[in-house]
This record gives sequence, C-alpha cells and structure tokens, in this order.
Amino acid sequence: MNNSPIGVFDSGVGGLTCVKELAKLLPHEDIVYLGDTARVPYGTRSKETIAEYTAQDMEFLRGHNVKMILVACGTASSVIMSSPEFSGNTEPSYSGVVKPAANAACASTKNGRIGVIATGATIRSGSYGKVIRSIDPSAKVIGKACPMFVPLVENGYISKDCAPTRYFAEEYLECMKREQVDTLILGCTHYPLLADLISDIMGDGVKLISAGAELARFAVKTLTFSDELAEREEQGSQKLYCTDSPELFSENVERFLGESFSGTVEKCVLTAH
Amino acid sequence: MNNSPIGVFDSGVGGLTCVKELAKLLPHEDIVYLGDTARVPYGTRSKETIAEYTAQDMEFLRGHNVKMILVACGTASSVIMSSPEFSGNTEPSYSGVVKPAANAACASTKNGRIGVIATGATIRSGSYGKVIRSIDPSAKVIGKACPMFVPLVENGYISKDCAPTRYFAEEYLECMKREQVDTLILGCTHYPLLADLISDIMGDGVKLISAGAELARFAVKTLTFSDELAEREEQGSQKLYCTDSPELFSENVERFLGESFSGTVEKCVLTAH
Repeated sequence: MNNSPIGVFDSGVGGLTCVKELAKLLPHEDIVYLGDTARVPYGTRSKETIAEYTAQDMEFLRGHNVKMILVACGTASSVIMSSPEFSGNTEPSYSGVVKPAANAACASTKNGRIGVIATGATIRSGSYGKVIRSIDPSAKVIGKACPMFVPLVENGYISKDCAPTRYFAEEYLECMKREQVDTLILGCTHYPLLADLISDIMGDGVKLISAGAELARFAVKTLTFSDELAEREEQGSQKLYCTDSPELFSENVERFLGESFSGTVEKCVLTAH
Repeated sequence: MNNSPIGVFDSGVGGLTCVKELAKLLPHEDIVYLGDTARVPYGTRSKETIAEYTAQDMEFLRGHNVKMILVACGTASSVIMSSPEFSGNTEPSYSGVVKPAANAACASTKNGRIGVIATGATIRSGSYGKVIRSIDPSAKVIGKACPMFVPLVENGYISKDCAPTRYFAEEYLECMKREQVDTLILGCTHYPLLADLISDIMGDGVKLISAGAELARFAVKTLTFSDELAEREEQGSQKLYCTDSPELFSENVERFLGESFSGTVEKCVLTAH
C-alpha cells in the first residue's frame, strides 16, 4: 500500500471529470490536482508550447510527492506521446487519456468505426488514430477538431437546448453521422459536460467514451495491480491548485465536481524548465 | 523626427486592428508588434496575472528600442490603469485603448448614453466607466462582458449571417438596445471584426467606436505634437512577433490585416519579471 496522493493535471478545469470518477471509485485516496488556468487553453497552441507547459505541470506534481501522475488533458496526453523528452522512464509513472480511451473504444465498437472529437492540437497529433490502429489495424478512425466546445463549456453553455451549442455540435458531428461511427471518444476532458447534447445528436446507438473517466478507471487497475492503493479509513482529501485566481477557478469547480466538493483551492506558481 | 519603430502589443491577434489603422495613417513608420499567443486570451484571467503578462510584453518592446508603446489590448489597457506598478513615468511612454476610445465616445454621443462591450476582466475593472465619467460626469455608461466573442473571432465565425454568433450578439446587446445607447465602444480589439453584425443589431443610429483604431489615431496626434514622426521616403516595415508558433499566428494575420501584409512573423520568448 501507498498513502501518497494521486496527482492529476489539466490545462484548466476539464480534468476534474477524471477527479470526479477517481473519487467515486477510490474514495480513500488523497488527490492533488493542478489546473494551469493562467495559460488555459492548451488545445489551440503549438506542440512545442504544449510540451513545455506539460513538463512544468508534471514537475509541480512531483514536488507534491505523488505516487502517480494522471495527465487528464487530451491535448497534453497527445503531445507527450510524440515528444522525445517524455519518452524515458520517469518516477513516478504517468498516464495520459489516449490509451485508456482508445482501449475502451476498441472494446466497445461493433462495426469498427470509431469517432474522435477533440481540440485542434489533439487532432493534428493523430494520437488516437495511432493507438487505435495499434490495437485493431482494421479500425476506421474519424477525427474532428471542435475548437468552440471548450469556450462554450467554460462559459456554461452546456444545456442540450442551447441553440448555439447545438449549432456547433451539429456542424462538428455531421461527419460522424455520415461515417456511421458506433463509438465516439470525447477526447477532450471538457466534453463530457456536453454528453447529453452529443448523445441527442448521435442517437442512442452510439456509445460515448469519456477520456477522463477512462483514465480514472485505468488508474484504479494500475494501483490495484501494483498494490499501491491507500490504506485509510477516512475519506481522502482533495487539494486543487490553479495558476490563476482561485476565486475564478472555484466558480467552475462546482460545475464539474457537483455541489459535494469539500476540498481546498489554492494558487500556485510553476517553474520554467 | 525619430526613426525608431512604434511598438504595439496585444494578447493575440486582436491588436492588429490598431496596426492596420496605424499603417494607413502613418505608412512610413516602422512597426514592431507582439502577440502573446502562447498565453492568449487575457480577458478571462485575473488582474494580477494580466498585470504580470503585460509587464513582460512591455519589457520585450523596450528591448526593441521602440519610441512609443501602444497597448492594443482592451484587457491589458484596463488592468494597468489600476495597477500601482504601472503608475510611474516610463521610457518610452505607453498608451492604452481606454482613454482614446472614451474620448471618441464622449465626442460622439448626443444622448449621453454610452455602451461598452469588452472582456470579463475589462468590464470587472470598470476602466471605461471611470474615464468616461471623468470627462462627462453626467454620462450613463452601460458595460457588458462578451466572453464568447474572442473565441468566435479567433475561429473565423465573423459573418453577420452566422447563426451562433448572432445568437450571442443579440444576447449581449439586448441591454444596450434597452438602455438606448447611441454610442457603443468595441472595447476589445477583436470586436471590430464583428462590426457588421453588431451594426445590424444595433441599427444605423448607433455609432461604433473601435478601441484599436482610436488608439492608432491618438498615436498619430501624440507623435505629431512631439515631433517624433519618422522621416523616410519608403514604406515602413512591419515585424510581427508571437510567443507561440508563427505558422498558427500567420493563419490569423490575414484575417486582420488583409491580403496586403508584407511584413515578417517570428517567434520570441518573453522574460519573467
């Protein structure tokens, strides 16, 4: 057993969809979360800039003595897969959302047609396609960047009846319907907040895969297998850090974690690499 | 006369609306522009973070030996007005968009009812209201944050027939129509790209003030008065710097400057203060 906290980070609040699932599955674990809100979003930036920010985020979590790092950001997860500076063994180990989500999608699909919606940087990286085809070379992968989804979610336009959100969703998902995908990866951790609307457009026959939730499930398996689960009676603590104002961050936390959140929110400073 | 370049900066590409006007009015001036694209947008961040980024932007332009700094970002212009670290005399002098735009609005209004649309940080700062009331204490100022406008413009949804853009514009401008403003300040330098749509909603009777263009006009007056205009026969050069990928930045430059742009685009690194 290992009572050190689990470290989770994202460019902003999206990664809290992973924290929510993690806290449900492993209520006794301490969690340290970092949202790089002074530089969110990552998904519109270049690979080099995202790699630099990601390295700083990981360094911060290492400083909190975490036993595992979860990269709960689809963009950062995609970029580190093809950046040489992240290819060595690291202590502690880290996992991104791409492999867990790709595995879940391959297990779910019946017709071998898998859709991926994500940020521009994630789609440009081709990360999901590479991993899916390494599992199932015959799978057809259809990727689509959805640049308006993050600002819509960050500003609370998430209702399935919200006209502009539906307009963009219909535009982005048109190719997924045409290609008859039966499984759709929500490859950015903001997107599960739009799941109702996306389901409504895609229909009941299409299975949605939440990248953040799949990462949480992967963490449970890994910690169980390596016998590193925490051993304590009481509920684990949740410490959230952000790089911009904690007040602005807190406004969004409830939208992601629900009203039950009882952890702390604090500002931190990241060190340039 | 002074042949040093004029320095202009913004969080991203929005400040190019000021560069465009400047190049039209003063074609013989050299211009150095900085867009902090690795950290755009500023308008959703806290005052403290915006002040820190702004100080780094100014430092960069000083390093290019500019004769004047134009803060072509409504958010940065608003934050520095109430941040003590910017209150001293600096060399070279700098000017933001708030005072030039407020002056133009006060000169334009007939009924004393002035609207201001801008980012969340600008509206929270109350900057435009303070300056307008210092010019005309009886003016009524109606401010409205329009957080979806920057992502809509950055993603090219600027046509007046674009349904979601119109949806948000109608939502944001409803209070301006109700309050019967006759002058509306576009307080964020991205917004002039939505001028057609905004005019369509507000009607011909409402005068739109472009903060970036007013800043350019103010620079012309200041340089003329202090006898610091450049003296050269040929057209001035335009050097654009950005903190993220020049390729990604260039995609947006044409949208703002038009197809005539013949300057250079380069990546730069800012120094932490």
